Amino acid sequence: MPTQHEADEIRRKVDRIAEALHAKDLDGLRQIYAADVVSFDVEPPLQHVGLEAKLKNWANVFAFFRDVHYEVRDLTLTVDGTVAFGHGFGRLSGTLESGAATSGMWVRVTLCFRKVDGNWLITHDQVSVPFDMRSGRGVVDLEP
Amino acid sequence: MPTQHEADEIRRKVDRIAEALHAKDLDGLRQIYAADVVSFDVEPPLQHVGLEAKLKNWANVFAFFRDVHYEVRDLTLTVDGTVAFGHGFGRLSGTLESGAATSGMWVRVTLCFRKVDGNWLITHDQVSVPFDMRSGRGVVDLEP
Repeated sequence: MPTQHEADEIRRKVDRIAEALHAKDLDGLRQIYAADVVSFDVEPPLQHVGLEAKLKNWANVFAFFRDVHYEVRDLTLTVDGTVAFGHGFGRLSGTLESGAATSGMWVRVTLCFRKVDGNWLITHDQVSVPFDMRSGRGVVDLEP
Repeated sequence: MPTQHEADEIRRKVDRIAEALHAKDLDGLRQIYAADVVSFDVEPPLQHVGLEAKLKNWANVFAFFRDVHYEVRDLTLTVDGTVAFGHGFGRLSGTLESGAATSGMWVRVTLCFRKVDGNWLITHDQVSVPFDMRSGRGVVDLEP
């Protein structure tokens, strides 16, 4: 299958993450990750291993936001055969459970995929903000 | 070429990063990254784009350490055709220019590769520490 077609399929998967987050649809997210996904998320711990740990992390996001919107910028994909990766920037924004609106912070996003039984799944991701070594603080005010 | 052979080649590339860091060998590092590498490094900015920006970042590390050692743990590789990715944990330790020893901090490392003219090159990486949302601080005391 041509690589461009595969890249389009993966891009639709990323769109589906945004749709599932907006709908607070954990089952929709479940379709996007491999059972043995290893996730380096924004917040501690160092890693979440396995689909249930990853979904629990998303469930925490759902509990934090009343209404959530996920924006992705500059997504660049590389694909060959059954392996692909992508990188770009993501931002969760919306209304918190407290009622306050938040414009969120931009994070760096790396998504790594395998094609399993004809279906592209995320087997690894890393999401982070930069770390300012001098102050010890995360840098949350940068825009791509 | 069998996938295992390719994975071994990539693993040797990662070993060469450690060797080049220890030797403060910028030219050695230059052989490992693509000209158009997009790097999401530990520290700001959001990204370094291009080989020269990436090498400048490593040059800053060389200026910081008198003697530097790079340890990698739990490196897991996925490869097919001309695309590969790996994830694991890394730690820079050694003696600072001030003379003080540092045991460093563990960071999450994602490395994304393309095979170009028979040679595996890093076209994207992301390296980070987790971010504690409540305190606003980076979390630097976790061990894999």
